[in-house]
Amino acid sequence: MKAEPYELMEKVRREQPLVHHLTNWVTIFDCAQIVKALGGSPVMAHAEEEVEEMSALASALVLNIGTLTVEFIEAMKRAAGSARKNGIPIILDVCGAGATRLRDEKCFELLDSGRIDIIKGNVSEIARLSGARVQTRGVDAAPVAGDMESSARQLARERGAVVVVTGQTDLVTDGKRLFRVHNGHARMTTVVGTGCMATSVIGAFAAVEKDRSLAAASALCCYGIAGELAADKSSGPASFKQALIDGVYSLDRETVRSRARLEEFA
Amino acid sequence: MKAEPYELMEKVRREQPLVHHLTNWVTIFDCAQIVKALGGSPVMAHAEEEVEEMSALASALVLNIGTLTVEFIEAMKRAAGSARKNGIPIILDVCGAGATRLRDEKCFELLDSGRIDIIKGNVSEIARLSGARVQTRGVDAAPVAGDMESSARQLARERGAVVVVTGQTDLVTDGKRLFRVHNGHARMTTVVGTGCMATSVIGAFAAVEKDRSLAAASALCCYGIAGELAADKSSGPASFKQALIDGVYSLDRETVRSRARLEEFA
Amino acid sequence: MKAEPYELMEKVRREQPLVHHLTNWVTIFDCAQIVKALGGSPVMAHAEEEVEEMSALASALVLNIGTLTVEFIEAMKRAAGSARKNGIPIILDVCGAGATRLRDEKCFELLDSGRIDIIKGNVSEIARLSGARVQTRGVDAAPVAGDMESSARQLARERGAVVVVTGQTDLVTDGKRLFRVHNGHARMTTVVGTGCMATSVIGAFAAVEKDRSLAAASALCCYGIAGELAADKSSGPASFKQALIDGVYSLDRETVRSRARLEEFA
Repeated sequence: MKAEPYELMEKVRREQPLVHHLTNWVTIFDCAQIVKALGGSPVMAHAEEEVEEMSALASALVLNIGTLTVEFIEAMKRAAGSARKNGIPIILDVCGAGATRLRDEKCFELLDSGRIDIIKGNVSEIARLSGARVQTRGVDAAPVAGDMESSARQLARERGAVVVVTGQTDLVTDGKRLFRVHNGHARMTTVVGTGCMATSVIGAFAAVEKDRSLAAASALCCYGIAGELAADKSSGPASFKQALIDGVYSLDRETVRSRARLEEFA
Repeated sequence: MKAEPYELMEKVRREQPLVHHLTNWVTIFDCAQIVKALGGSPVMAHAEEEVEEMSALASALVLNIGTLTVEFIEAMKRAAGSARKNGIPIILDVCGAGATRLRDEKCFELLDSGRIDIIKGNVSEIARLSGARVQTRGVDAAPVAGDMESSARQLARERGAVVVVTGQTDLVTDGKRLFRVHNGHARMTTVVGTGCMATSVIGAFAAVEKDRSLAAASALCCYGIAGELAADKSSGPASFKQALIDGVYSLDRETVRSRARLEEFA
Repeated sequence: MKAEPYELMEKVRREQPLVHHLTNWVTIFDCAQIVKALGGSPVMAHAEEEVEEMSALASALVLNIGTLTVEFIEAMKRAAGSARKNGIPIILDVCGAGATRLRDEKCFELLDSGRIDIIKGNVSEIARLSGARVQTRGVDAAPVAGDMESSARQLARERGAVVVVTGQTDLVTDGKRLFRVHNGHARMTTVVGTGCMATSVIGAFAAVEKDRSLAAASALCCYGIAGELAADKSSGPASFKQALIDGVYSLDRETVRSRARLEEFA
């Protein structure tokens, strides 16, 4: 029998995986805090001289290009090389792909430089990586024509990766299996960094579960449930973020079981 | 008839302008979040290779030298060049001007390198840019002798810019017209980043209104009202900041109309 | 008669010392905010060209290697040189020492390059600096064998510094005197940055009190009390952090007097 979302969450709490991040300067605190709230141990380290060693200590590597520079991407490649050698999952948030040439180029460079286990973005970011000519407007999703599920499946097959597309319904696919996660709340889009935090949560789940699709889908399910609960306790984006982090910390089995809205398709 | 503060706020919510920031590492999250709370779309991007393209997508460019480096200022110049070419407003927060030679030099370099639409600082920062020999103590305002309103007017005329001086009463002037904004609350001075966030709010308003003085004054008025409301709901700087961001998100026409304390002088 | 913890706190509120930080990108906001909440004036500035001047304006210098790079360490050395020349205390948080060679090397480089007044870390970080072969796991404490108090005393004597070891009981020693601080709350370990903020609080206290051991112990005592009060008011790590910062802002003499659990040994 397959692991349920809550069981993976509990595994994170028990194993306290070290999740190494090279992430952006906007949401770096929240990415660390959400992993800590889950029970994991976040570490943010980007110096070229130490990223390989740090990734070698970790159970997952999270990369996020939100405030990329050329040097930062080089450090990401070194960290990723070490992660591959040590067999830990690499999760890439293609934050802002489609907005500038630099972001596009560097995304493709990262994808071409070796295995990335989980590629995560919003609809316009993933559409862009799938070859669509889409102009992402900064880091917020732009409307995209076409069937997102088949674009995601295609990208997953091409890259040998699990692809995660966040939105009102989140999609997770390895090219064959596809999960739809219906959990979450509209207020998440009013908070800066809910996408980045989602990637870190996926990183923590992937650190303890080899089935990458299941890990990503379970992560988004639990995180989305915390978002639903937070909506009831908040009166704006700042109190919502606080309730979201507290909610992730407090999630219990009953709540996850009763609220999970996760569909799997072969 | 002139637009009222709330109308500009509503315009931000409707148009969701992309506000490109090159800002400091201390308050980068809060600057992004306050723009998002207003209904705008913040993007923080500083790589020299992409800032021109990003500014070309944006409706306003916010520069903040709070944690400047020499390279960062070069990226700002490139972003500003692109903003000028594309006719979008540039808002510069001269955070810490007067504290070190580097800050002074780089402020003047930025001002000399081309049009800056809105220059914003506290009393000692603006006094320093107006040529006064004042020693800013870090990033907090130091007492300044002399008539701030005439210094601000003079600087505005010299630089062809709107000058904003924040304090208990905020001043906004293009050299001729002058606004005094009496909204705000003393507790704002206990929170790190309320000045930086004010600049971002001005950026969002300037993105939707060509009258720069009106945009800046309206922005400070709405933001100050949110601060007044937050004071009643908080018990210290951290809960105040949360209430401030939630408050900006929730401001409605009636509240702004009844609380606005904005004076205009010819 | 010796100053009590609350008296030093009041001195910070009265003197509003400028505390210059070169710190990490994860908790930079919270480090600034906690100093501001105490009544101090934080400034975060890391450009090599200005750090000497900024430190010369300040009353304490806080260094934190949490997200170090080689260049950043060079800026730290320049800031520290200026701090020494100006006779202000230097507080070093050896965040992540023992995790990678770079962190170890750079810690020793900083310690060898001149006087550091207060060295602060968790048990595994301090054990590593004392010469133990310990593998720190990222930035969280790893279990350490041996007597921490004698390791700390030895390191203090070797380096002519006050050594601070944070944990369930915090230790402060100059090699001879030793303080044990029993204040604090387990929930502090669920929040990213409580260690970094502790260092900033120590910086603010050391800015107003020449007895470095007393300053550090008093700082940890007051901060720990705010943590105890925050625990009662919070339902997870995010609301806890908010209550902690608000609590530091609101601490009064009676509360500190009645809750302080500070032991001094000759």
